Amino acid sequence: MQIRRFHTPDLTASSETLLLPPAEANHALRVLRLGKGDRLQLMNGRGIIADAEIMDLGDSRRPKEAPCRILSLREIAPPAHPLTLCVAPPRGKAFDLVLKAAVELGISAIQPILCEYGVARPEDASDSWQETLVAAMKQSSNPFLPLLLPPMEFSKALESSSGEAGLFGASPAAEATAFQRLTPQTANSIARVWVGPEGGFAPQEEEALLKAGAIPVTLGRCVLRVETAVPALLGCIYGVANLCNDGAEHA
Amino acid sequence: MQIRRFHTPDLTASSETLLLPPAEANHALRVLRLGKGDRLQLMNGRGIIADAEIMDLGDSRRPKEAPCRILSLREIAPPAHPLTLCVAPPRGKAFDLVLKAAVELGISAIQPILCEYGVARPEDASDSWQETLVAAMKQSSNPFLPLLLPPMEFSKALESSSGEAGLFGASPAAEATAFQRLTPQTANSIARVWVGPEGGFAPQEEEALLKAGAIPVTLGRCVLRVETAVPALLGCIYGVANLCNDGAEHA
Repeated sequence: MQIRRFHTPDLTASSETLLLPPAEANHALRVLRLGKGDRLQLMNGRGIIADAEIMDLGDSRRPKEAPCRILSLREIAPPAHPLTLCVAPPRGKAFDLVLKAAVELGISAIQPILCEYGVARPEDASDSWQETLVAAMKQSSNPFLPLLLPPMEFSKALESSSGEAGLFGASPAAEATAFQRLTPQTANSIARVWVGPEGGFAPQEEEALLKAGAIPVTLGRCVLRVETAVPALLGCIYGVANLCNDGAEHA
Repeated sequence: MQIRRFHTPDLTASSETLLLPPAEANHALRVLRLGKGDRLQLMNGRGIIADAEIMDLGDSRRPKEAPCRILSLREIAPPAHPLTLCVAPPRGKAFDLVLKAAVELGISAIQPILCEYGVARPEDASDSWQETLVAAMKQSSNPFLPLLLPPMEFSKALESSSGEAGLFGASPAAEATAFQRLTPQTANSIARVWVGPEGGFAPQEEEALLKAGAIPVTLGRCVLRVETAVPALLGCIYGVANLCNDGAEHA
């Protein structure tokens, strides 16, 4: 049976009962038609996941509140190496694909960046982005909801991240230098991943990234869409970083 | 200016002139309204890319044929380590995302596999899949169009690939063992990547893969959709494999 997951930001390690937030209660009672005794899973998006059951809904024929009793609860440790994804939003729905992949691959924070060659220049993080993140959190069973930051100019984002080890998706022309600096040790230290727009980072943006010490990585000779570059670069970092967790075996 | 790319399977290293195939001619003449002297790029999908121009279209007001003169031509070497992607097609449009990512990341062949937990069981490779591959080849500027094979039962696909080094996306529960066998050397030898359906490979399928010597890899603790797992696993292989191309520097 499919586990029914609900986002309950108020859930804490000491919760015994809890009301589902209004939108979640509506989904539970109206759409899924859950009733007294039905089981569900609650996620606070900050590492706590609880198994729970719906309590007595009272006599109303259309109950509005969904009180839940916590049956068991576990706290999951946050990622040892939290990653922030700085990414230029592609136009329209494609950014949803990026957000989903970021949640599934365990990104801690998402910083939309406004780049020279960017096609979309959103002023604010859209509500639908946040909804996509929450839905992806439930679907992928990620205990941690990434923090969605408001869009920021590339140069400001780079400035505000000074001191953090970075890695960026570089243009295919830079392929030759791709892995010269990405050792298992450096991959493990990366705190920020930069992915530019479809047209890539502008030359002065690549220069600024290099000057800030970010490592350029290209994955092959083709042009990658943003929604391919994000999971591929994250897979690359995780793959290379994990090698060194095994120590001498792979030295 | 955007480069206009066309798929011309008949293009060879000795071509001097060429007629665009009917669908491509229609796109060039009707949609893009190209005329005599306009530049375009021709790709045969087997490593040859030519710069060309439209020749005289004659007196017809609605010319049907688009003859091109080759101006220059280059042959690109095929990937040193061709990879076949064996993947369980997700339902509906999601497989298009998988195909696009596979083209962008330079996969040589795609083998749809029918798995125990697969939701879609297509009997044939659909025409729209092939169209997606061709469109992605043009968009990503990949000189090689992947070979699309007809869907095959998982067990048959595994049998027919015996002797080829493989790697598969394993269930998150297997995380502890993820990278024990993926060294730069093994990553470089991988010829086949196995990605199961949303629900993962069935236990007996994972067993068969392990018995055949395939390396299990998981990327984190979340459930990945197929369209995330494919680019993330490919990024992981490329990342780890490239490490060893640099030799002693990273030993």
